[in-house]
Order: sequence, then C-alpha cells, then structure tokens
Amino acid sequence: MTAEILCVGTELLMGQVLNTNAQYIARRLAALGVSIYHQQVVGDNEKRLEEAYRLALSRADVVITSGGLGPTVDDITKRTAAKLLGKELVLNPEADRMVRERFAQYHRKMMGNNQSQAMFTEDTQILLNPNGTAPGAIVPAGDGKVIIHLPGPPEELEPMFRDQVEPWIMARSGRVLVSRYIRIFGMGESEVDMRLKDLEVKDNPSLSPYCSLGEVMLRATAGADSTQAAEAMLEPLIEEIRSRLGKVIYEIREDDGGSLAHTAVRALREKGWTIATAESLTGGLIASTLVEVPGASSVVKGGFVTYQSISKTMLLDVPEETIETCNVVSAEVACAMARAAREKLQVDIAVSATGLAGPDGGTPERPVGTVFLGIATRETVYSIPLHLAGSRARIRTLTVKHALHAVTRETKGEREEV
Amino acid sequence: MTAEILCVGTELLMGQVLNTNAQYIARRLAALGVSIYHQQVVGDNEKRLEEAYRLALSRADVVITSGGLGPTVDDITKRTAAKLLGKELVLNPEADRMVRERFAQYHRKMMGNNQSQAMFTEDTQILLNPNGTAPGAIVPAGDGKVIIHLPGPPEELEPMFRDQVEPWIMARSGRVLVSRYIRIFGMGESEVDMRLKDLEVKDNPSLSPYCSLGEVMLRATAGADSTQAAEAMLEPLIEEIRSRLGKVIYEIREDDGGSLAHTAVRALREKGWTIATAESLTGGLIASTLVEVPGASSVVKGGFVTYQSISKTMLLDVPEETIETCNVVSAEVACAMARAAREKLQVDIAVSATGLAGPDGGTPERPVGTVFLGIATRETVYSIPLHLAGSRARIRTLTVKHALHAVTRETKGEREEV
Repeated sequence: MTAEILCVGTELLMGQVLNTNAQYIARRLAALGVSIYHQQVVGDNEKRLEEAYRLALSRADVVITSGGLGPTVDDITKRTAAKLLGKELVLNPEADRMVRERFAQYHRKMMGNNQSQAMFTEDTQILLNPNGTAPGAIVPAGDGKVIIHLPGPPEELEPMFRDQVEPWIMARSGRVLVSRYIRIFGMGESEVDMRLKDLEVKDNPSLSPYCSLGEVMLRATAGADSTQAAEAMLEPLIEEIRSRLGKVIYEIREDDGGSLAHTAVRALREKGWTIATAESLTGGLIASTLVEVPGASSVVKGGFVTYQSISKTMLLDVPEETIETCNVVSAEVACAMARAAREKLQVDIAVSATGLAGPDGGTPERPVGTVFLGIATRETVYSIPLHLAGSRARIRTLTVKHALHAVTRETKGEREEV
Repeated sequence: MTAEILCVGTELLMGQVLNTNAQYIARRLAALGVSIYHQQVVGDNEKRLEEAYRLALSRADVVITSGGLGPTVDDITKRTAAKLLGKELVLNPEADRMVRERFAQYHRKMMGNNQSQAMFTEDTQILLNPNGTAPGAIVPAGDGKVIIHLPGPPEELEPMFRDQVEPWIMARSGRVLVSRYIRIFGMGESEVDMRLKDLEVKDNPSLSPYCSLGEVMLRATAGADSTQAAEAMLEPLIEEIRSRLGKVIYEIREDDGGSLAHTAVRALREKGWTIATAESLTGGLIASTLVEVPGASSVVKGGFVTYQSISKTMLLDVPEETIETCNVVSAEVACAMARAAREKLQVDIAVSATGLAGPDGGTPERPVGTVFLGIATRETVYSIPLHLAGSRARIRTLTVKHALHAVTRETKGEREEV
C-alpha cells in the first residue's frame, strides 16, 4: 500500500503554522509499513487543491488530507474531493449527531454553516471526532483508492488517526503490526547506528532510529498474521539489542510516549522515594520537567532555584568560602547544594546542578558547557561532572536530561560515582 | 515573483524529522511579499526528485530546495537539478576554498567524496555556509527562473537564507521591505482580528497575525524604494494599531524574536530590580523561562519550588492553618508564597503561582485551571486569579506567561490589583 499526504491550508503555505501533522502521519504510516513517496501542501484554493488531488491519486493508493473540514468558506477539502469524484455532499445522520453533541458539550451555538461539517458523499465512512466538531471521513475514490480526510488541529487529528485510521489500514492489509520503542540515553546516534547497523537493514522485523537532543529512540516493528506471531518475532531482536547496548537503554515501551522524566518519576514511585531539586544553570527546569508528568505530586516534594551565587548561600547554606575556594561551578558546590536540599525538604534523594550555560562566562579551565550534577541520598553524596557543548538552550536541556537519568540510575543502585 | 518550496530527504518523508525548514522559508518569503502556492516533500530518489523539479519549475519563478547537499550518495539535489538542466557539475574554486576552510576549522579530515560538496554548474552563484560544510547555490534554470539550493540543517539553512537569499530576492525585486513585529498578550486572536480586520486586508503596508499559546504576534510590512519611505509608511499603521489595542501590546520589535520573558527581564533591568519566584503548579517553569534569557543572572536571584503543600510550609512558612482554611489554591496562599519568597531572597519583586493543572483534582468550586498568581513588592502584596482551560501542559504554560506579564506590568506601575 502506498500513501500520499496532502495538507491543506494557506496558514501552512505561508508558514504561520508548523506542519506537525505531516510528520505525525508519515511516522505512523512508516510504522505500519505503508510506503510514502510524496507530501504536498496547498492553500485554500479550489483549483490548486483539485490538481493536487489528481496528482496524488495518480501515484498513491491512499491520499490522506489534513485541514479544511471547518464550516467556513475557506474550508474546501471535502467539497473539492466530492466535485473531483463527481459526487454530491449530503447530510450524514451519524456525523450530524456527532456535530450536535459536540456543540452541546462545548456550550456553543450551532450556526447555519456548522451543518456543512456533517455533509459527506453517500459512500463515505465517517470518522468520529471526540476532540472537536469536525468529523473525519474515508471516501472511496475509484480503482480501489481512497481519500481520508482528517481535521487540521493536531489534538483532533492524532487520536483520530491512531484510533480509527490505523485499525482501518491494518484491517485492509490483513496484517498485524506490533512495535516496541526502545529509549536510549547516553550513547550518540552514530555509535548506536554502528552497533546495530546489520539489524537496521532488515525488513521484518524492521528497526528504525529516531533522534532528539541527547536521546535516541529505536522503533522495532514486526508484521505477522497474529499479534502473538509478531511479538514472537520481536522478542529475539529486543534481546539482541539489549545485549549490544546494555545500560544505555532506559526504557522499552509499547508506544512512542515516555521520556526520561516519566522513567524517573516511575522509578521514584516504585522505590517509594520523594525528591527535591537544587538548580543553578537550569533555573527550575529539572523540577518543572519532573512536574510535567501527571501524578508527579506523589514524589516531587519541592526544590530551590539558586541562580545567583549569593542565593546558594542564602537558601542552601553553601559556605561563601567554598564558593570562593572551589568555584561556584564545582563538584563541592554541587554536593553542598544537593545535601542541603535533601535535608531542608526531608526527602530521600536530591539532585542539584551548577554550571556554565553561556554564551559568556567561560574560562580555559571551565569552558561554557562545564556542569556539575550533585546527588544526595540518605546514604551518600556525590557529584557527576558533565562536559557539554552548544547553545545555552542545548546545554540547559542536556543538563536536565543527565540529571533525570542520574536520579533513575541512583534509584536502581546503578550509581555513577566519580 | 512566485516561489515553490521543495524539501528533499527520506527522513522528512518518513517523519523522522519535523519539517521546520518549509515553515521558515515560507514565513520569510511571505514577509518579502513573494507568493507561495505549493510545497513538496520527496525522498532521496532521483526519478521522483526530477519530476518534482519539473512540476515546480512549471508553476513557480523560484524553486527553493532544502537538503541533499552532503557528500553521500543519497545527496542528490544538485546532481539531479544539473541533469535536468542539461549541465555538468564542475569544481567551483570559491566553494572548494570554503569547504576546505570549514573542514580545517572543525578539525575534520576531508574524504574524497567531500569534494563533491564544492561541485556546481558553471553559471552557479555560490552561497557561502558559515555554519557547515555544504555551500548553497543559486542556479539559473532557464526562462529567467532559478533553483536555489539550501542545506538541510536548520542552523545552516536559516542564516544562509536570511543573510544571502533575502538580499538577493530584494535586489531582484528592486524593492526595500521593512517589517515591525507587534507582540500581544491578553487578547485572543479573534478579538485582535475583529479590531484590526480592515487593516489586515490591505496590501502595502500589509498586516498578518501569527498565533501561539495565549499570544498573538502581528507582522506589519511595507515595501518601498527606500528604507525611509517604507518606515514612513509603517509609522501611521503602528500608531493606529496602538490606539486600537492599547495595553495588550507588550512589545514592538524590528525582528520576530522576543518573548514575554525577554520583556520581563528587560523591564526588571531597566528598573534595577531583582526577582524571586515561588512556584507550585509550574514547578520551576517561571524561573527557568526567565533564565532562558541570556543575561538573566543580573535580575533573577533565585526561587522556590513548593510543589507539595507541606513544602509551602517548610520553605515559605505558609501557615498550615491558612492552607487548611483558605485552600492551597487560594489568593491567600499565593500572597503568602510571594511575600515569603521576596523576604527570604531579599529581592525587589517576587511572583508566585498556585493552582490546579489537572488532569485530576478539580472540584466544582475550584475546577482544573483555577490558578492564583501572587505579586509581592517592597510596597504591596496582591494576587491575580486566573481561570484557564485545557491540558496540563497548556495550563502550566499559560500560567507562566501570565506571571511574566504581571511582573512586567508591575515594574511599569500598571498594577492589576484584585
């Protein structure tokens, strides 16, 4: 099966909105083994949209549109497709019911033109929208081809795709696909690649790397006649990856969610530990990243932002002498910060960070990117030196990731003492 | 002039990478008054790339490519364009010098295939790349049309576009364009739209809104024969916008940078004030957003993350009784947090936030999204109630923005006392 993505909207064409939908759809389709050779973006213009449809239908089995399902005159995706296919739009009772429900739920009044959201060609299969007023649709387009219409807002498109389009694609292909997502921290993309190169060229199970700052995620996917058969194909692959990469794998999941913060919060919860933070260069970003995780309140007690040197003394009793003798960016200060945060908030573990995020302030001994983490538990206090590089934002983000990883490892007794 | 954006890369097609380049180029071209009607994405496939070139050249004056300028066999953007145009790639001495310089600078060894990065058709105008090893190029494509090749990494593409392609486009059009960016907080997109509708339909000066969570940015652009003439056209427009929108405008800039945090840090610096934070639901995000601004260290002294109720008592002496009587999400607790943070860190102003970010924990009197900010100065302490809606992330981010805005207004004596 081949698919083409056709995003509709002048706001995309003019760059007012970042096209995250194309990436989302592409990534999910790739995971399902569907080939994509083209993506297009066109504005709210009927003539150009019609040409884009023609072109897409000439080269793909499934054309997936995003955007242009709203009630305004600009929203022409459905109308233009129907015209091209020589069909009429009529009121779809199922869609009409859904639109009415949604308006009632949002306490909004339906205008005359809102009913256009429930108009589809007669052979359309409706995709319900639990998160907005525009239903999606699967529209037969002749020769066994289909056009799938999805709404533009990502918070509506993504669940609709995941919960309704993916099962439809899987049913059509008669295959079951099972994926595992392997999250890695502490090994660069190129080294992961080098170690797994021979596994990444295989088709089934397939293995693809996705990179973000400091992290690599691997997606392993197997296709078979049944879930069990696909899982059985994945198992030895996962074991092989485990044996080649070892401890840099911090999580293996059935979905592409998760993060270092999720893993840290879960590790703390499993251990029954509470945590506190003491942050200089990150300025509260370690704490707020932990707090992003719903339910973090059972483990995150609180923390200190000690950005100016003097605040380290005022809030965490770090002796001014230590700061002067050892430098504010030092293992000693990191340890003192963590120790004090742990004691003052009476928690099981505290993590601290002090360092130079730049762009100014570097010296030959302590260049920009020099960071010390501190970890304090009831039993020990130690520091972890980091040598990071890049922009201020990059250094701060990487510091947060290293701090979260260090916390997870400490809960598992995999201390990284230096 | 019409342009088409053609992004090349299998990693884009498969969704491994988010296509920020298309948005960047589109947005800058729109600001220059260049019309864009199509964007395409194709993979590293010669046949499909050649078709994409043909199609783009049939409908646009300028075809801008991103990606595929590296030395590997996958990198086919230049090669395929040359083939289509019936031209040879030859070593370009200027490009060769640049590539060699860059390799020396990065202490990297040049491989044989690195020289392919310096190969261009003879009539090419080279675009130097200060941030990477791949030069860009402006290639005549017949009939007065051109293909512009840009490298894929955004940190290379964006400066090259801004510093070299934009001046080229302006020179070609014989016009000078001047823009002003008007940043707005505290008024929704639809109300801004309603108040400025008649101004937004004009062509020169033009006015376009860009929205992000809780914020609207307006770009006003005038084109004329000289900078002075363009500026003179903008002035009355800006004045008109000021008079219609008033205090919700928090900044007017010559570039599209800036943020509520930048404005707050600058306002604090101008006033000579230091700031502290006391955060519950935001968990350090107000402080870390302030610290994102380079040079924040002169004003941000430190702060407290008091996520669990008990930590508000432990770190900020909020009486347990107040928390019990008034609720932890209350004006009283917000004020007590701000007052204590200000006193403990001996700063000029402190800002606090307590509230319900959800997804759980809401009650009929205090639904999810109920937030109280606290502001304490040497003279006064007051709270600002917020009624926010949406996801946990949305509520936390909007709380940060409201807090930063409240700080800026307090420094200007525009108190929002409740």
